[in-house]
Amino acid sequence: MAESPKDLLEAFPNPNPGRDYTIEIRCPEFTSVCPKTGQPDFGVLTFSYVPDAICVELKSLKLYLQSFRNVGIFYEAVTNRILEDFVAVLNPRSAVLTADFSARGGITSRIVVSHQAKS
Amino acid sequence: MAESPKDLLEAFPNPNPGRDYTIEIRCPEFTSVCPKTGQPDFGVLTFSYVPDAICVELKSLKLYLQSFRNVGIFYEAVTNRILEDFVAVLNPRSAVLTADFSARGGITSRIVVSHQAKS
Amino acid sequence: MAESPKDLLEAFPNPNPGRDYTIEIRCPEFTSVCPKTGQPDFGVLTFSYVPDAICVELKSLKLYLQSFRNVGIFYEAVTNRILEDFVAVLNPRSAVLTADFSARGGITSRIVVSHQAKS
Amino acid sequence: MAESPKDLLEAFPNPNPGRDYTIEIRCPEFTSVCPKTGQPDFGVLTFSYVPDAICVELKSLKLYLQSFRNVGIFYEAVTNRILEDFVAVLNPRSAVLTADFSARGGITSRIVVSHQAKS
Amino acid sequence: MAESPKDLLEAFPNPNPGRDYTIEIRCPEFTSVCPKTGQPDFGVLTFSYVPDAICVELKSLKLYLQSFRNVGIFYEAVTNRILEDFVAVLNPRSAVLTADFSARGGITSRIVVSHQAKS
Amino acid sequence: MAESPKDLLEAFPNPNPGRDYTIEIRCPEFTSVCPKTGQPDFGVLTFSYVPDAICVELKSLKLYLQSFRNVGIFYEAVTNRILEDFVAVLNPRSAVLTADFSARGGITSRIVVSHQAKS
Amino acid sequence: MAESPKDLLEAFPNPNPGRDYTIEIRCPEFTSVCPKTGQPDFGVLTFSYVPDAICVELKSLKLYLQSFRNVGIFYEAVTNRILEDFVAVLNPRSAVLTADFSARGGITSRIVVSHQAKS
Amino acid sequence: MAESPKDLLEAFPNPNPGRDYTIEIRCPEFTSVCPKTGQPDFGVLTFSYVPDAICVELKSLKLYLQSFRNVGIFYEAVTNRILEDFVAVLNPRSAVLTADFSARGGITSRIVVSHQAKS
Amino acid sequence: MAESPKDLLEAFPNPNPGRDYTIEIRCPEFTSVCPKTGQPDFGVLTFSYVPDAICVELKSLKLYLQSFRNVGIFYEAVTNRILEDFVAVLNPRSAVLTADFSARGGITSRIVVSHQAKS
Amino acid sequence: MAESPKDLLEAFPNPNPGRDYTIEIRCPEFTSVCPKTGQPDFGVLTFSYVPDAICVELKSLKLYLQSFRNVGIFYEAVTNRILEDFVAVLNPRSAVLTADFSARGGITSRIVVSHQAKS
Repeated sequence: MAESPKDLLEAFPNPNPGRDYTIEIRCPEFTSVCPKTGQPDFGVLTFSYVPDAICVELKSLKLYLQSFRNVGIFYEAVTNRILEDFVAVLNPRSAVLTADFSARGGITSRIVVSHQAKS
Repeated sequence: MAESPKDLLEAFPNPNPGRDYTIEIRCPEFTSVCPKTGQPDFGVLTFSYVPDAICVELKSLKLYLQSFRNVGIFYEAVTNRILEDFVAVLNPRSAVLTADFSARGGITSRIVVSHQAKS
Repeated sequence: MAESPKDLLEAFPNPNPGRDYTIEIRCPEFTSVCPKTGQPDFGVLTFSYVPDAICVELKSLKLYLQSFRNVGIFYEAVTNRILEDFVAVLNPRSAVLTADFSARGGITSRIVVSHQAKS
Repeated sequence: MAESPKDLLEAFPNPNPGRDYTIEIRCPEFTSVCPKTGQPDFGVLTFSYVPDAICVELKSLKLYLQSFRNVGIFYEAVTNRILEDFVAVLNPRSAVLTADFSARGGITSRIVVSHQAKS
Repeated sequence: MAESPKDLLEAFPNPNPGRDYTIEIRCPEFTSVCPKTGQPDFGVLTFSYVPDAICVELKSLKLYLQSFRNVGIFYEAVTNRILEDFVAVLNPRSAVLTADFSARGGITSRIVVSHQAKS
Repeated sequence: MAESPKDLLEAFPNPNPGRDYTIEIRCPEFTSVCPKTGQPDFGVLTFSYVPDAICVELKSLKLYLQSFRNVGIFYEAVTNRILEDFVAVLNPRSAVLTADFSARGGITSRIVVSHQAKS
Repeated sequence: MAESPKDLLEAFPNPNPGRDYTIEIRCPEFTSVCPKTGQPDFGVLTFSYVPDAICVELKSLKLYLQSFRNVGIFYEAVTNRILEDFVAVLNPRSAVLTADFSARGGITSRIVVSHQAKS
Repeated sequence: MAESPKDLLEAFPNPNPGRDYTIEIRCPEFTSVCPKTGQPDFGVLTFSYVPDAICVELKSLKLYLQSFRNVGIFYEAVTNRILEDFVAVLNPRSAVLTADFSARGGITSRIVVSHQAKS
Repeated sequence: MAESPKDLLEAFPNPNPGRDYTIEIRCPEFTSVCPKTGQPDFGVLTFSYVPDAICVELKSLKLYLQSFRNVGIFYEAVTNRILEDFVAVLNPRSAVLTADFSARGGITSRIVVSHQAKS
Repeated sequence: MAESPKDLLEAFPNPNPGRDYTIEIRCPEFTSVCPKTGQPDFGVLTFSYVPDAICVELKSLKLYLQSFRNVGIFYEAVTNRILEDFVAVLNPRSAVLTADFSARGGITSRIVVSHQAKS
C-alpha cells in the first residue's frame, strides 16, 4: 500500500454549501486481510456525512477502498483509520462510518465510528 | 430541458389548511444522465411534506420529474435543485426529499435534503 | 353516499377508561373513486388511537369505510374527512390516521393526519 | 374458566434485582372466543417488562394464557385483563403488553397496554 | 465448566481510545442446558459496547461462550452472568447484551441487560 | 353490469405471430361483491397466455375488470367467466387465469382455471 | 365433538363441471389438542382440489375445522381424517391436504395427504 | 435511434465451446417510451442463453439496451425485437429473454420469448 | 455416546398404512462437534419420508438427535449415519434427509441423502 | 498465481461410496480481478456434486478459491476453469458450479457449468 492511500480520495465543490444535508454511501465490496491469520476479510462500509465545502467523488472513494485489498489490518483499526482519512480530506460537518464484517467462526462484527466538526 | 421545468409543477388548494398533516410521495422511476460519463442514472425520489395553502398535483409532479430524463446533472445537484423547485412552487410548511440512486461501480448513494419554512 | 355516513360508526364503552392505552386498526381493503378520472383508487387505512369513554366497533367501521366505495373524492380530502368523522363520533384522547394509496402513474402516496384532544 | 386464572401464574426470584433489565416474551398461540359471534379469535401476545423481586415462570404463563381458550371476551377487555393479572402477580417495575389479533372481516387489530410502577 | 470461565476472555489494546465508538458482535450459536428439564437451550447473543482501554478478542469470546455448552443455567441468570463477566474483564465505557432464545412451548424470550461505567 | 362486458376487451395484432411466447399480466386491484353477504371481495388476477393473432390491450383489460366492481358473483363463477370472456375475445393458443382472493373468516382462496386451444 | 363432524361440511354446485380446474383453500387458524400432553396444537391447513359436481362452501369448512378445537388427536391421524371427510362429502376429482403444525420441542412437522378419484 | 442498433452488440470467443453451459444476465435499468402516451416505460430484462462460438460482451449489451431510451415501442414488440437482435448477432445454441415491465394503471406485465437453434 | 443411539428412536403405528403420504420433520437445533478442530457444528436437519407400518415419535427423534451433542463426527458421515439409523428403525417406504450446516470459514454446506425401499 | 492452483485442493474418502448423495457447498466470498479494467470482481460460487471415491476438504477448497484473489480472468473463463479443476481432482459422479457475480454497470451475471461422469 502506498504511504498515503488517502491521497487517492478526490473531492468536488458542494453544490449547496448553504444548507446542511446528508449524503449516505454504501460500499458492499470492501475486502482486506486479517494480519493474524492471513485470511481475507470482507465487509460492507456505509458512510453518512454532512458535507461542508466539498463532497467526495465516488470513483476515487472506490479506488481508495481498493487500496486495502491486500493490506493486513484489524477490524477496529481499519474502520477508525478510514474515517480519519475521510475526515482529513473532506472536512465534513459530521460523519459516521459503519462497517459490517462477514461472519468469522460463526460471529459477525459491526464497528460504528463517528466524527463531529468543532463549531 | 425547458428554461423553467418547475413551471411544470401544478397545485390544488389544500383541503384542510387548518391542520398540519403530512403527505409522502414515492417516485421510483426517476432517471437522468451522468454529466461525466453520459451514462443514465436511476433513482427513487421520496417527498415528505406538510402542505400550507396548496398541495402538489401528482401528474404534474411526474411530468416535472420526466423533464430530467435527458439532462446531465450530478446526484447532489439534482436532489438540491428538485427540492428548491418544489419549495418555490408549493411553499410547504416543511419538506424532505430523499433520493436513492442505483449502484454505480458497486456503490449506492442516498441524498437527503430538507426545508423548514420560517415561522 | 348518504348525507351522514359517519352515522354508520358505532361504539361500545371503553372497558378501561382509567388507563391511556392504544388501539391500532389496519383496514387494507379501502377503495373509492378518483373524481377527475373516474378510475377506482385503492388504499390501506391504519387508525391508531387512545380511546376515552368509548371504542369503535369494528364491523361498523368496516361498513362506514365501504360507504366510500363509489364516492368520488381525492386522497387528501378523504383522509382528512375520515379522521374528522372518527373524531366526531369517538372523541378519542388522540388519533392518527395513515392512508397508503396504491401506485398511480408509477407514484405512491401516503397521507398522515392526526388529532389531539384538548386537555 | 376458573375463578382466578391468575393463580396459574408462577414466579421465581429475580437473579439480578439490583439491576434494571428487560425481559420480552412472545406468545404467538393465544386464542379465545368472540362473545358476540362465538367464533374463535387468534392473536400474538408480547410482554415486555422490567422485573422487580420476581420473574414470571414461562410454563405457568403458557398455562395461564391457555385458560382463555374457551372464554368469551373482547379484544380490549382481554388485553387489559391479562396485563392487570400479570402486574398483580409479578409486581414488575414496568410492563407493556402488545396484542396483535388476526384479521376479521379484512381488518386487523393491535392493542397496546402499559403499566408503570409508582416510585 | 471451569471455576472461572471468564478467564477465557482475552483482550487487545483499543486502537482509538481517544474516541467513543461502538462495537457490535453477534453470536448466533450459543447453547446451554435447561437446569430443570436437562434439555438444551439455543440462543443468539448480541453484544454492543463502547470500548475503553481494551477490546475483546473474538476467538476468545467464542471459546468463552462455548464453555456454557453443557452448563445448566436459566435464561435470566446466564444473560446477567455473561454481561458481568464481559464487564469485569473488558471494563467498557458501556455495554448492552441482548439474548434471543429459541421458542420453548411455543414461547420465545429475549433478555436485554446493560451496563454503564461510572464517570 | 352491461349485457356483454367482454365487449370492453380490445386487442391489437400480435407483432410476432410466428413464434410461441408468453405474456403474463398481473392485476392486483380486482374487486366484486359477494352475492350472499353483499360484502365486497378483493383479489389479485394473473393472466398467463400465448397469443395467437392478437394480444389484449391493457387499458381495455383494466376497464373490463372494473365492470365487475358492483356485480354480485361467487369466486369460482367469476374466475371461470373471466377466462371464458378472455378466450372468446382473444382466442389465445393457451391461457391460465389464477385468482387469489383476500381472506374471509380467516380463510384464503385461490382459483386456477386454464384453457388450451384445439390444434 | 359430534358423532359426524363431517355433516358440518356443505357444498354448492360446481359452476363449471365441464372443465378441470383447481381450488386452493388456506386455513391458518386450525387448532386441536395433543392427546398425550393435553396441550393445544396449532397448524395451517391447505386444501388443493379439482371439484367434480360440487364445491365446498367456505363458511361450512371453517365450522367443520372448528369442531376439532377441543378434540384430542395426533397430527397424522387428524390430517388423514380431514382429507377422508373432505373426500367423502365433496367427491372431488383429486385433492391434496397439506398440514403445517407449529414447532413443538423445537421441531416442526408437515403432513401431506392426497386422494385421486378412480377413473 | 440508429438504423441498426444491433451493431452495438459486441462479442468475444466462448472460452469453452466444447461444453453446453448457461449464462444468465440481468439488466434492471431498461427504459423505453410508450408510443401511444409518450410516457416512459421501465423494465427488467433477463437473458439466459447457451453460447455457441461467441459470448456477448456486457458493456456493449448495456449500450445496445440504452439505445432504446427514447424510442417509442410497445412491450411485446420490443421484447421480440431484442431477442431477435441478440440471436442474430450471437447465434446462441438457445436463448430466453424475460422482460418484466413496471406497473401501469395498477397492472404489471411480463413477456417471455425464447429461441432454439436448429440442430 | 451410547453404543446404539438409534435405540432412542421410538415409533407408533401408522394410522393410515393403506395410503402413501408424506411426513416432513424440520429439526433446526442439531449440534455435534468437528472431530478435527473440536469446535461445535450447528445444522438444520429435515426429514421427509413416506411411512410404512410405523411413524417416528417426535420426542424420541429429538432425544436421538441430542445424543450427537458431544460426538465428534464429520458432516458427510453424520448425515449418512442418521439416515441409516432412521431407515433401520422406521423402515419407511422412502426417506430423504437434508442437512444444512452453518457457515465455517465463510462456506456453507448442505448434504442430501435419500433411501428408497425395495419393492 | 501458482502453476497449478488445483494442487491446493485436498480430499478425504467418501464415507458412503455405495450410495449416490449430494453435497452442496456455497462460497459467498469469491473475488478475482477483471483483466480488462483491473477492477476487482466479486461473486458467490455454489458447488453441487455427487461424490464418487472422495469428497472435497472444505478448508482446501477455500484456499484454492483464494488463489484467484489477484488473478485477472473473465467470468466465463474462471467458472469453467474452476469446475474443470474440481472435476480433475475429485472425479465426482456429477457436478454443477453456479457463479453469481455482483452487478457491474447495473448488470448482474450468473454462469452455470455442469459435468457428468461417463458411465
